Amino acid sequence: MDLLPHIKELSRRTPSKILFIVLDGVGGLPREPGGPTELAAARTPNLDELAARANLGRVTLVAPGFAPGSGPGHLSLFGYDPFLYQVGRGVLSALGLGVELGPGDIAVRGNFATLNPDGTVADRRAGRPSTAENRRVLAKLREHIREIDGVKVELFTESEHRFVLVLRGAGLGAQVHDTDPQKTGVEPLPARPRDGDDEASAKTAAILNEFSARAREVLADEPVINGVLLRGVSARPRWPALSELTGLTPAAVASYPMYRGVASLVGMTPLEVEIGADPDAPEGKLQTLRDHWNEFDYFYLHFKKTDSTGEDGDFDGKVHKIEKFDELLPQLLGLGAEVVAITGDHSTPSVMKAHSWHPVPLLLHGPNLRGDAAARFTEEEAARGALGDLHGTQVLPLLLAHAGKLQKFGA
Amino acid sequence: MDLLPHIKELSRRTPSKILFIVLDGVGGLPREPGGPTELAAARTPNLDELAARANLGRVTLVAPGFAPGSGPGHLSLFGYDPFLYQVGRGVLSALGLGVELGPGDIAVRGNFATLNPDGTVADRRAGRPSTAENRRVLAKLREHIREIDGVKVELFTESEHRFVLVLRGAGLGAQVHDTDPQKTGVEPLPARPRDGDDEASAKTAAILNEFSARAREVLADEPVINGVLLRGVSARPRWPALSELTGLTPAAVASYPMYRGVASLVGMTPLEVEIGADPDAPEGKLQTLRDHWNEFDYFYLHFKKTDSTGEDGDFDGKVHKIEKFDELLPQLLGLGAEVVAITGDHSTPSVMKAHSWHPVPLLLHGPNLRGDAAARFTEEEAARGALGDLHGTQVLPLLLAHAGKLQKFGA
Repeated sequence: MDLLPHIKELSRRTPSKILFIVLDGVGGLPREPGGPTELAAARTPNLDELAARANLGRVTLVAPGFAPGSGPGHLSLFGYDPFLYQVGRGVLSALGLGVELGPGDIAVRGNFATLNPDGTVADRRAGRPSTAENRRVLAKLREHIREIDGVKVELFTESEHRFVLVLRGAGLGAQVHDTDPQKTGVEPLPARPRDGDDEASAKTAAILNEFSARAREVLADEPVINGVLLRGVSARPRWPALSELTGLTPAAVASYPMYRGVASLVGMTPLEVEIGADPDAPEGKLQTLRDHWNEFDYFYLHFKKTDSTGEDGDFDGKVHKIEKFDELLPQLLGLGAEVVAITGDHSTPSVMKAHSWHPVPLLLHGPNLRGDAAARFTEEEAARGALGDLHGTQVLPLLLAHAGKLQKFGA
Repeated sequence: MDLLPHIKELSRRTPSKILFIVLDGVGGLPREPGGPTELAAARTPNLDELAARANLGRVTLVAPGFAPGSGPGHLSLFGYDPFLYQVGRGVLSALGLGVELGPGDIAVRGNFATLNPDGTVADRRAGRPSTAENRRVLAKLREHIREIDGVKVELFTESEHRFVLVLRGAGLGAQVHDTDPQKTGVEPLPARPRDGDDEASAKTAAILNEFSARAREVLADEPVINGVLLRGVSARPRWPALSELTGLTPAAVASYPMYRGVASLVGMTPLEVEIGADPDAPEGKLQTLRDHWNEFDYFYLHFKKTDSTGEDGDFDGKVHKIEKFDELLPQLLGLGAEVVAITGDHSTPSVMKAHSWHPVPLLLHGPNLRGDAAARFTEEEAARGALGDLHGTQVLPLLLAHAGKLQKFGA
């Protein structure tokens, strides 16, 4: 459900500040039946102390059973229903690489593929090449294909067989079908506009077909990577900005390009973070928050490693990352935000090594809290919290309400 | 989500009766962290006894973070999604004053204002005059402006700077912008139809502009109150009646005009209540219920003072009002309704002195109950109830189901 129009109607500016902390993929599962989750296993005296005087609840980001990608999970927490506010794969990949997209630019997700001599697809991922091999081959393409019909062609390595293609030029549309046939033994599909009368998308399709043909010529002498498959043709969406909807001045404190990119889609200002050896190290982020504390009233603060350790199946590593966050917490609380919330954009249970659909705990501290039977920031305790079961899109209005920024609905 | 079409499809008449009790603003917050809420602090042996054999749950009336006004809170409990069934401010104010509105009548919320000699607004609330002063000035207007272009003009004092203007005549539309510019230093806006082709609303706008001009003439010699600002131009909505949707014969037992008015919007019959010195005293309402018990099968019973004490910041007063209700409860149960439910239309925590977004407890007693870990009718106990977390619009179908009035959905 889209609450944003109602939020827009009722929001008001106040001096209070909101610190919104996302521990990526923080929700987990027990390693063995009956055992603790990563959150329950972690030694977190500061979180425990905060949980005792906060309100907790459980958040479903998309819908029960739907494991959220990073984009949808975050959009939901920012108030944008991920079923209604969808981002194309090309755009998400570009954002993940830190590629800036202007209005009218087109981003496409590319796969290196192996084609048979008859032009049919032999391997949709070209044997999963190394990322170094991807870079080598992409450099060849980049050298030979800089422009097609006056449209600038930019190529970026993602990883293994994956790359991102960005088209920059006038009059391009994004309503174009994939060329990836999703199976082997058949030829790649031609790029086609979804609607034959859509001239802008027809132009994009023609350029993509020309790109695919030229790529085959350039890669003709390659033994494995001799073709490309394209999908997720998309343009940067034009959504109402969070500032426009809420009156907030929102900033993002995140090191990884993907999260800075998603935050920028809803109009947050991504702040520079000093990155040392470990891009998730807290010192840089804390300094960024301090440097800009007076300029904004909503700070989205992102930590990545709770997700990466989960994806790696590293239960103890995830526990350790949670404990590292706990050590930082007193300094974050010391910033003095009126409302502090901590949650995740999805679960990433180490035992699953993947994003999952399980609800994530939400901790909310600020004025006007109820009593709450939840004593720790864990999945199980959160079930006893005063906030109950929430959808991700309900988090923003709750933060605004506790910060005194949401007026009464109706008389 | 609008469940009403489905309820209409599945409802059936049965002889069972539903007593639906709304303790206005009954949800609360602890006076100090860790302390009890008003409900938890109250000594309520009868409620406790009922809660032990009832099912409890938590109800969100509008959406998390959205503090409901009295209109939306009640509409939600009556089954009407307040995002879909919106009432204009003018109509709500008129209902609050007990002003009857027929089809085609237009209600407008008026503010007395102070205008500068150049016509710009100096004070949008004319220094917040006393209600007595409001009456004096409104009598002057009433004397000079009885009719405009064949349309009857009626004026009603609300309080302080607020009054209600009702237009009664043929061919009037309600799609008219406010004249209140919402700031000082600029002139009041002319009343304009939202759509230039809407002749009925253009007629209303012309009458409102004439009213504003005549009011300035009549008030020319007033030192402070020398102008009016108009907003919330609205007509009584035409919604499907509860009886038509459910087959119920619904009656409202409420003393205050606002609640009788909102109940009448969904087609309830507002019953006369003998009001003594205290309009919220239970004796009159109990007598009304007894007098009409055989005529209706759904009784909405409203108590106001749990809200007023909360609005006053009077924690102990609210506790006392809850305890007074508890004393009455055995007599209410003695009426013999098959289904009895108790809840609130929103929270009004004494510490906030205002409506709030916090969920309200719901108690449901009747046939076919589950076991339930909630032992008292309090916010915290309700979190452990068998009914779980509900939206306000889900209460009506639950009442109908427990009363045996809702058939199976699908084969």
